[in-house]
Amino acid sequence: MKIKVINPNTTWSMTEKIGAAARDVAAAGTEIVAVSPQMGPVSIEGHYDEAFAAIGVIDEVLKGEAEGCDGYVVACFGDPGLGAAREIAKGPVIGIAEAAMHAASFLGGGFSIVSTLERSRPLMEHLVTAYGMTHQCRSIRMTDLPVLDLEVEGSNAEALVLEECRKAVEEDGADCVLLGCAGMADLTARISREIGAPAVDGVAAGVKFVESLVALGLGTSKRHGYAAPLAKPYEGAFSAYAPGNRR
Amino acid sequence: MKIKVINPNTTWSMTEKIGAAARDVAAAGTEIVAVSPQMGPVSIEGHYDEAFAAIGVIDEVLKGEAEGCDGYVVACFGDPGLGAAREIAKGPVIGIAEAAMHAASFLGGGFSIVSTLERSRPLMEHLVTAYGMTHQCRSIRMTDLPVLDLEVEGSNAEALVLEECRKAVEEDGADCVLLGCAGMADLTARISREIGAPAVDGVAAGVKFVESLVALGLGTSKRHGYAAPLAKPYEGAFSAYAPGNRR
Amino acid sequence: MKIKVINPNTTWSMTEKIGAAARDVAAAGTEIVAVSPQMGPVSIEGHYDEAFAAIGVIDEVLKGEAEGCDGYVVACFGDPGLGAAREIAKGPVIGIAEAAMHAASFLGGGFSIVSTLERSRPLMEHLVTAYGMTHQCRSIRMTDLPVLDLEVEGSNAEALVLEECRKAVEEDGADCVLLGCAGMADLTARISREIGAPAVDGVAAGVKFVESLVALGLGTSKRHGYAAPLAKPYEGAFSAYAPGNRR
Amino acid sequence: MKIKVINPNTTWSMTEKIGAAARDVAAAGTEIVAVSPQMGPVSIEGHYDEAFAAIGVIDEVLKGEAEGCDGYVVACFGDPGLGAAREIAKGPVIGIAEAAMHAASFLGGGFSIVSTLERSRPLMEHLVTAYGMTHQCRSIRMTDLPVLDLEVEGSNAEALVLEECRKAVEEDGADCVLLGCAGMADLTARISREIGAPAVDGVAAGVKFVESLVALGLGTSKRHGYAAPLAKPYEGAFSAYAPGNRR
Amino acid sequence: MKIKVINPNTTWSMTEKIGAAARDVAAAGTEIVAVSPQMGPVSIEGHYDEAFAAIGVIDEVLKGEAEGCDGYVVACFGDPGLGAAREIAKGPVIGIAEAAMHAASFLGGGFSIVSTLERSRPLMEHLVTAYGMTHQCRSIRMTDLPVLDLEVEGSNAEALVLEECRKAVEEDGADCVLLGCAGMADLTARISREIGAPAVDGVAAGVKFVESLVALGLGTSKRHGYAAPLAKPYEGAFSAYAPGNRR
Amino acid sequence: MKIKVINPNTTWSMTEKIGAAARDVAAAGTEIVAVSPQMGPVSIEGHYDEAFAAIGVIDEVLKGEAEGCDGYVVACFGDPGLGAAREIAKGPVIGIAEAAMHAASFLGGGFSIVSTLERSRPLMEHLVTAYGMTHQCRSIRMTDLPVLDLEVEGSNAEALVLEECRKAVEEDGADCVLLGCAGMADLTARISREIGAPAVDGVAAGVKFVESLVALGLGTSKRHGYAAPLAKPYEGAFSAYAPGNRR
Repeated sequence: MKIKVINPNTTWSMTEKIGAAARDVAAAGTEIVAVSPQMGPVSIEGHYDEAFAAIGVIDEVLKGEAEGCDGYVVACFGDPGLGAAREIAKGPVIGIAEAAMHAASFLGGGFSIVSTLERSRPLMEHLVTAYGMTHQCRSIRMTDLPVLDLEVEGSNAEALVLEECRKAVEEDGADCVLLGCAGMADLTARISREIGAPAVDGVAAGVKFVESLVALGLGTSKRHGYAAPLAKPYEGAFSAYAPGNRR
Repeated sequence: MKIKVINPNTTWSMTEKIGAAARDVAAAGTEIVAVSPQMGPVSIEGHYDEAFAAIGVIDEVLKGEAEGCDGYVVACFGDPGLGAAREIAKGPVIGIAEAAMHAASFLGGGFSIVSTLERSRPLMEHLVTAYGMTHQCRSIRMTDLPVLDLEVEGSNAEALVLEECRKAVEEDGADCVLLGCAGMADLTARISREIGAPAVDGVAAGVKFVESLVALGLGTSKRHGYAAPLAKPYEGAFSAYAPGNRR
Repeated sequence: MKIKVINPNTTWSMTEKIGAAARDVAAAGTEIVAVSPQMGPVSIEGHYDEAFAAIGVIDEVLKGEAEGCDGYVVACFGDPGLGAAREIAKGPVIGIAEAAMHAASFLGGGFSIVSTLERSRPLMEHLVTAYGMTHQCRSIRMTDLPVLDLEVEGSNAEALVLEECRKAVEEDGADCVLLGCAGMADLTARISREIGAPAVDGVAAGVKFVESLVALGLGTSKRHGYAAPLAKPYEGAFSAYAPGNRR
Repeated sequence: MKIKVINPNTTWSMTEKIGAAARDVAAAGTEIVAVSPQMGPVSIEGHYDEAFAAIGVIDEVLKGEAEGCDGYVVACFGDPGLGAAREIAKGPVIGIAEAAMHAASFLGGGFSIVSTLERSRPLMEHLVTAYGMTHQCRSIRMTDLPVLDLEVEGSNAEALVLEECRKAVEEDGADCVLLGCAGMADLTARISREIGAPAVDGVAAGVKFVESLVALGLGTSKRHGYAAPLAKPYEGAFSAYAPGNRR
Repeated sequence: MKIKVINPNTTWSMTEKIGAAARDVAAAGTEIVAVSPQMGPVSIEGHYDEAFAAIGVIDEVLKGEAEGCDGYVVACFGDPGLGAAREIAKGPVIGIAEAAMHAASFLGGGFSIVSTLERSRPLMEHLVTAYGMTHQCRSIRMTDLPVLDLEVEGSNAEALVLEECRKAVEEDGADCVLLGCAGMADLTARISREIGAPAVDGVAAGVKFVESLVALGLGTSKRHGYAAPLAKPYEGAFSAYAPGNRR
Repeated sequence: MKIKVINPNTTWSMTEKIGAAARDVAAAGTEIVAVSPQMGPVSIEGHYDEAFAAIGVIDEVLKGEAEGCDGYVVACFGDPGLGAAREIAKGPVIGIAEAAMHAASFLGGGFSIVSTLERSRPLMEHLVTAYGMTHQCRSIRMTDLPVLDLEVEGSNAEALVLEECRKAVEEDGADCVLLGCAGMADLTARISREIGAPAVDGVAAGVKFVESLVALGLGTSKRHGYAAPLAKPYEGAFSAYAPGNRR
């Protein structure tokens, strides 16, 4: 089974970390292809960044279909381009925010999300609502760390993240903690140990859930909501992406 | 006051119709600039189309800021790129779905949406929820007309739309009807007359609401949710769009 | 176009301030008629006050229909008598709470309401829910100022309101602030400047939205929810208000 | 114990029927005072009627407090004036819509409301939402009977109501049926027998629930939401109702 | 009328206190039978305890039907076994959590729950949602007292409960307070006096509401949701409970 | 890895079918132990059956912990005993209703449930709400087949189930179909083929999701909601189940 894990930003050091996290948990027969798009933002911290990252995700899924990928993980906590990706993928496509939230709902009665910049809070609130997780979400705690600070050796990022995770459990009554940024994938085990409660990394959860669905022979439904894009022309710079042209 | 009305698809015959609808209702001192992006889908009928259309909307808002536009209407019933557009606009940005829903909520106790392809229903349901309009939405009726059929002379599109509007009022208990496609803007007056209830065209409502907010000196808030994109590099084909590079 | 702005309480100094705020933003061709009812409470601070104020609002709308008014703004943040007013008005009727909330939802991802007495909080919570704005409302902050203290020269009312607005943005994550009392209309510009985020005055927003709807030829729907009252006798003191008797 | 049952409309034939229904179920020591206001609409079929009926309800509660009433039932399915009545009553005040809905929620997993004119549907939907009964409400079925037709001897009103109750159980999956008009109080027993499921009359349920709360020594809370009206002048025709003046 | 009040745990000192509270409020003709099951947990503080307590509740309702009981109160704030009990009872069955919440909703605009161990919070949140009381629930305050500490003479349990009740009213804006444990039934009157707001004991409210429904001739609906269990074999230790075997 | 799949009813022919379905999808290293409790109902079709089945589930999880099971699937679409099971299991415990709903939410924009007796509809509606899946659930279609008819050779059960699945997709707009009974596990592949959309069997999905969580080192959180039962005596027939006694 071949699963493509797409880091929607173009920071390859993060992509490598994400790829390692994915390979760590992948089953014996699973090939992980971890990629970043060739174009787009180096980090995703708002709607504007997300709009461009979505095109990168689409581009990688289009290639993935040609390369025989069986499923996809969109490895950014905002799930950019997820709906579009589902329209063009035969197999399952899972975002790491949804993977983490659904996993947490199997493990406890309420989760908290610990993430990066305060300005991304509304994006996360929107996902919590969209995935029907309002009743599960105890709190969203932002460290106010820029995404790329997680990549800097020797920063105090890890300590800050850990502190918010601890407060989520002690003060907000969270049963589990979700690490709300793909760049935190390597902190999971340590945080879980320190707080005495499951810490869920959406990259790892996403890989296992895609593996599960593929093993069950289940792909994205092509009826109604995620039916394949209708064939039609696209103008200008995007003409190569016109449905029907390429696939 | 200069308001840019962006038809996010690239079908200029529709853009002209939209521009005419906008000019019909604009105040004396309002200049309407009706445009389509230079790139992207000829019609928007799913998540995939929307992802590309969002970039076109962004492109037009970036230009609009340079051209001194005071506000924007995003003239596609799915409100593509709305969040990203708000991050980069100083003035207000309103989508026609939200404009129509909010207008209807001032006029009656419940509305129905009449729109095009069945496959777009989940997109509309998502907007109804996102805008907090669940309690107002009596029904969503799809004619199963492709968007561009509305542009074809002599089609029975108008009759089909009218029939669904009539059923919305008679069978579903709608007080008002929303025309769920910018391409229906020219049918509003006739439908309203025939069904004996307000028919709301989002393009017209969007123009008036943007005019209203600009007149009040109100623009998009730059605190929290729609703060300006952080300066950062964008790789590859999108490098010109990197925040800080261009504006 | 003639718009009647009804201050539902009988404190004319407030009515004048409201009228001035309305005239400040009205378009060139709009005539603003600002009135208070001839009967009812001097301020509205609970369900009991509201019940009487509603009759005053109805009385002014009945007169307004005879006077050729094209639309109405109900200038009390509890929107008293709004449903009844809609049943008897041909044009649009907008309450300042709903005007402010809808305006704010165009400008940001979340608003806070800053208002007067703590005891009015449940009324505001009810409106937030009724208008589908739960997802937008970050907080309701009450200054615990009686409504009429806003009319007293030299009180520290303005400072108190400003302080709560600042906290709404800094502590509660509000993108915009709504001034939850018609008596605060004159503070809007200053507050907006001080907090660096849009402050929305419902009177101003209500006037512009009514203007917009009238310009679009849209009035209150007479189907279902706000159909005209059925003709029937009313007994005793209210006999003159019996539907069919008067209009 | 003295309970005042207020029929908010001025049709005394209905008031007598309501009083009889209340006395039928009252405990041995309970005195039922069934009244209609001296002023207001002969039937309540919309927001406009309700606004005037609310004043009548208030008037009767003010008198009731002077007369030593221990609690109140507001016997119109729209619960007019309920909030205001609670601000001025020491004892409990219950509307028949809320009484019926809460009773039904003790008896089954879902109820349907069967009522009168189609135009009152939005009022009932609003109450269902306001009372948190969305998950319990299987359907609202309107017979399109005017309220006063229920008072006409030999009409087919009873047959029509029964037919809708039967459909509610058979087609909509209702476990119980609520009779959505005080004028249907005398049909309860027969309907319950015919449909083989509980039919709940809000008048009867309201009387028993008020009796229960009074027996428990529980009255309307005077903290926050229903605190007594603040003393203040009321102008003109309503001056006698000014809080502080009268009580 | 015979009402069985079932304390689902097996601590008879608590059962006696509950029985006394029930008898204190019962009407002249009402016989209260207060029991604990013969098997099961001595206190109920989680899902595991609740699962066993539910069988005890069922056992007592089965016996109660044979003994001619007219209705039942399930006297544990988690309402264990309530649905099953309704399937086998002809009369009404009310849990004390639902009784208290519905009573409070008649008395004020928002309530708080004050209860025992922090670990029971999710059970209570679940009930608040299931009963449609989200809009009424201002806060859930846990004293972190084990249930049985309420039975210990000279403990400071009462002071702790009172303190949280006071904070609920002063800090959380509660109009009423619900005592979230049957073991607190004897504190009601004193707490209500001290906090100046209604304190609702679910045992007392449950008894009066069951009395009310029985007096109205209303029992559990046997259509749909709580229809009698289908006859079928049960294996092993539970064979005597097989529907059709016993009743 | 050892996963116990618990059929909460005592019909071993169904248990064998469920075990086969589980083994079909289990990974190479996964041992499936499929069991029925030694006591309880032969099928689960209501709250009463569920209460007894919950004890059987608990019994099997207690044994499973002693036997070294790494995780559990509760194979009845009502998820009986799920909360209690989580309190006593170290590893993950997943019900097949929740597994199926979460899987479907990864594959499409809306699902329908096709299940057995009409009387179980409220149980399913409750789960849909409890799992936050209201926005995903297009319809619940009951075949009105008793559960055990699915076990009868030559019945038309399969045809009936297929027909409802087809209608769910064609008429209700479902993207996926959930088979709402463990006894339908063997129909999945055929139905999926016939309706051209994913049919999700909760048993298979549950096994893969438990495998995934175990592989990730994630078990049930022991903080707050599912903390281990407190040690305490249980009286009578259940004394052996007292927490602290046994484990």
